[in-house]
Amino acid sequence: MKTLDTLKPLTERLLEVQHLHSAASLLSWDQETYMPPGGGEARADQLSTLQTMAHDKLVSPEIEALLAKWVDQATGQALEIAGDAWDEPSRALLREVWRDFSRAKKLPSDFVKKLSRECSLAQQIWAEARKKSDFKLFLPNLRTIIALKREETQYLGYKDSPYDALLDTYEPGATAAQLAPLFAALKDRLVPLLNRVVASPVKIDDSPLTRSYDPSRQVEFGKLVLTAMGYDFDRGRLDLSSHPFTTSFHPTDVRVTTRVYERELPACLFSCLHEGGHGLYDQGLDQARYGTPLGEALSLGIHESQSRLWENCVGRSRPFWHCFYPLLQRTFPDQLGDVTLDRFYATINRVAPSLIRVEADELTYNLHIMLRFEIEQNLIEGRTQAEDLPAIWNEGMKNCLGLVPERDAEGVLQDVHWSLGAFGYFPTYTLGNLYAVQFYDQACLELPNLEAEIEAGRLTVLTKWLNQKIHRWGRSFTADHLAQRVTGRSLSPEPFLAYLEKKFGTLYGLIGSDTGRETQRRA
Amino acid sequence: MKTLDTLKPLTERLLEVQHLHSAASLLSWDQETYMPPGGGEARADQLSTLQTMAHDKLVSPEIEALLAKWVDQATGQALEIAGDAWDEPSRALLREVWRDFSRAKKLPSDFVKKLSRECSLAQQIWAEARKKSDFKLFLPNLRTIIALKREETQYLGYKDSPYDALLDTYEPGATAAQLAPLFAALKDRLVPLLNRVVASPVKIDDSPLTRSYDPSRQVEFGKLVLTAMGYDFDRGRLDLSSHPFTTSFHPTDVRVTTRVYERELPACLFSCLHEGGHGLYDQGLDQARYGTPLGEALSLGIHESQSRLWENCVGRSRPFWHCFYPLLQRTFPDQLGDVTLDRFYATINRVAPSLIRVEADELTYNLHIMLRFEIEQNLIEGRTQAEDLPAIWNEGMKNCLGLVPERDAEGVLQDVHWSLGAFGYFPTYTLGNLYAVQFYDQACLELPNLEAEIEAGRLTVLTKWLNQKIHRWGRSFTADHLAQRVTGRSLSPEPFLAYLEKKFGTLYGLIGSDTGRETQRRA
Repeated sequence: MKTLDTLKPLTERLLEVQHLHSAASLLSWDQETYMPPGGGEARADQLSTLQTMAHDKLVSPEIEALLAKWVDQATGQALEIAGDAWDEPSRALLREVWRDFSRAKKLPSDFVKKLSRECSLAQQIWAEARKKSDFKLFLPNLRTIIALKREETQYLGYKDSPYDALLDTYEPGATAAQLAPLFAALKDRLVPLLNRVVASPVKIDDSPLTRSYDPSRQVEFGKLVLTAMGYDFDRGRLDLSSHPFTTSFHPTDVRVTTRVYERELPACLFSCLHEGGHGLYDQGLDQARYGTPLGEALSLGIHESQSRLWENCVGRSRPFWHCFYPLLQRTFPDQLGDVTLDRFYATINRVAPSLIRVEADELTYNLHIMLRFEIEQNLIEGRTQAEDLPAIWNEGMKNCLGLVPERDAEGVLQDVHWSLGAFGYFPTYTLGNLYAVQFYDQACLELPNLEAEIEAGRLTVLTKWLNQKIHRWGRSFTADHLAQRVTGRSLSPEPFLAYLEKKFGTLYGLIGSDTGRETQRRA
Repeated sequence: MKTLDTLKPLTERLLEVQHLHSAASLLSWDQETYMPPGGGEARADQLSTLQTMAHDKLVSPEIEALLAKWVDQATGQALEIAGDAWDEPSRALLREVWRDFSRAKKLPSDFVKKLSRECSLAQQIWAEARKKSDFKLFLPNLRTIIALKREETQYLGYKDSPYDALLDTYEPGATAAQLAPLFAALKDRLVPLLNRVVASPVKIDDSPLTRSYDPSRQVEFGKLVLTAMGYDFDRGRLDLSSHPFTTSFHPTDVRVTTRVYERELPACLFSCLHEGGHGLYDQGLDQARYGTPLGEALSLGIHESQSRLWENCVGRSRPFWHCFYPLLQRTFPDQLGDVTLDRFYATINRVAPSLIRVEADELTYNLHIMLRFEIEQNLIEGRTQAEDLPAIWNEGMKNCLGLVPERDAEGVLQDVHWSLGAFGYFPTYTLGNLYAVQFYDQACLELPNLEAEIEAGRLTVLTKWLNQKIHRWGRSFTADHLAQRVTGRSLSPEPFLAYLEKKFGTLYGLIGSDTGRETQRRA
């Protein structure tokens, strides 16, 4: 039996590629946190060089020769060599390296360099355009990036839609054709649910969340929650950035960021839970496999499942706040002394159509994604032009959520993704929402005391389960295989829809009293 | 006439090397400022990969072929090609690239990788050892590094002493044989001066400097001074680190750090002035020449001249405090309200033999360097073993300054340099002190109102002069050529000694009254 030891000539080379990626990640982290404003252009050049070198090292003749020896280039599967088979980790490693290599090989080095540089610059222009709510400022860069991404789909190749080539970057194997019915199923039940919630006589006043909350105390509370989740500050840190994110340079150095608004308590709180979920995944990857696909997160959808599980299934649940609300009240006695746990639970779960995706409630969130999914398909398939985006966006928002943004900053300019060239990224948010509930339901089944543990603040029971089931495996399995291993079935919108219908049905008095809390969901 | 345009195939390749160096610098900066403690080992590997790649790219066959065409490999000078000469910048560029290339070419790639990794690890062990004042903890790493540096001297080659090969890394062309008489000249006049100062009836009580100073106000004042110096915060930032330093990723992103002690006002104040001097140099380099030697600082000695000029010639002068002392008093009214300008000036210039180099006064500072210069020569020449260092150090301190440290943390473990493999670095501090005064004297000659400008807080008059004369030229000239261009003569210890004798002679009542202030020095 051949093992990972045989692959050492390959993994040693991959480690160098990883070091370049890790360095590039630090450069990006710094760009978002501490870089002085004047440093942007030089940073774009530096990032572009690192990313191009990483690309060139991955598609080097040395790696190509090793893969040619070990991988069947038609199927992408490991070759049996002289009757000697590979063990399971080796087969997974070869399958995934082949995937990375063959995708990278299709992209010319000059193209990688150009794309990286354009994105790094566009990101800074986008930030300025959003600040000024001036779409025209961003338009030339956006046009360039769309053209480059369309060019990229031609290099990568695809079966049905060029958009699939990009989707596959973030969610291996996903296609627009598979996602469309999934979104349709969500829409079919979410829109009626939303209508019933909006029509409900239950009105939730969330004004306590907009009282004045000292920013540094908010951050301290975020750290407390992160620590309780098992996020290790010896191997990570929490900083501020305009857009919260998580980045990892190695399982021993995984950083999360948050943002804090004095009069918006949820912003810091839930971004800490959210990024903490991402952070636990990255800290939980197998250190011994660093630099290989087995030491990398499976996909963005699976990554997002971890953040949404913590943010929503845990962080917006009663058991969690049973433990943490008294601590939050003690941190903000003047602001929350008169707010009961029940009322607080309601405020953080209030449903209301809104303009900004990252502030959307659990019910409307996927409608925001749906809009982006449609728009970016049309852009990449060439049916929509960049200059028409503000109008298309506003029309879509009106149809989906009955709202029209007054400023592009609150509309088409709100997200960073397109400036980064990250077309095909948004759908992974919805996949993450669905996986999150499917995984969490399973955790509740397998850990029958989970709710009691969470009520007692022992969140790491869940962290350990997630690590055993998901984190430590890296890219050993495909997403579908993982879902089957962990939950016994492929991804389905059903658990997610049942969760929402139960939760908001109860909260908005659509299905009887709230006394049973969330325990029934587990039945 | 051939110009820099001809060199584009070369400078484009050098730019990639620079991007790797810049990325590595950011990784190092992060390691000293924000990296979580667990991230150290992975960081060492990442840095090692980047540095090895930079090395390999510099000595690549492509660059070798270009240099073979353009440079006389015997003399290192640009070759006239078909009767067509190079213009001055091109000649300077080729001379300096050849220097870098031929030095790098002598070092095997594996050696570069090993050295980088060992130094990155040793630095972290050293920090722990210093914390615990446990030399033995650091000893194995130090031994490894000394062995590697001795190995390096064999690769690099040398005429008289292997130590010269290392000196040359930091101060091109400098040799132990040249430095020895310089140090001797300093010793000859500094030791008697120190004895007279110590014996003087004038006793300076610097206890006001150890009152309680709010750390964040100290940092704010440091920023105010940096801004007045012309340090551009749009292209830089100030952070905290255990050892203050300056690093640059590009002239548009030059970062300085400081450290703050509540009961030690000078630490933050003078490290801001010092690092600010370094920062102005790096911000003042020619952006258009980034990635080539013409866009790099000339040498460490010249770099240090800029920091010491600002820290001492300016920052410990009466004209400077004439302007800034009222502001400092306003920042700390309770602490400094009862301290006159005269008294404050005396406290920050108090001379007293002390254990810690970075806290040493201007008079004793070079005696600290002298000790290190002797020790590291003996280590590299193999006459001293690492395990004997604590005893040798303590003996040397007793001889030089009449003090013996009680703990190695305040003795042989105090400096980071050896853990970084930076043997041959210390002498550049003394060179910097000498260049600083020689340059500053010249500035006073050429800018007759300089003192009045400084008294009015218009420090950028000096910044501009330094930029015109020194910063913007990068490595266009050798250090000696620069000294001749700027001051009309080679480096001499005379201006520095005259400056000290005048300043401390006056302060300690050794040569009459203090009424003439420092103006006579300019005569």
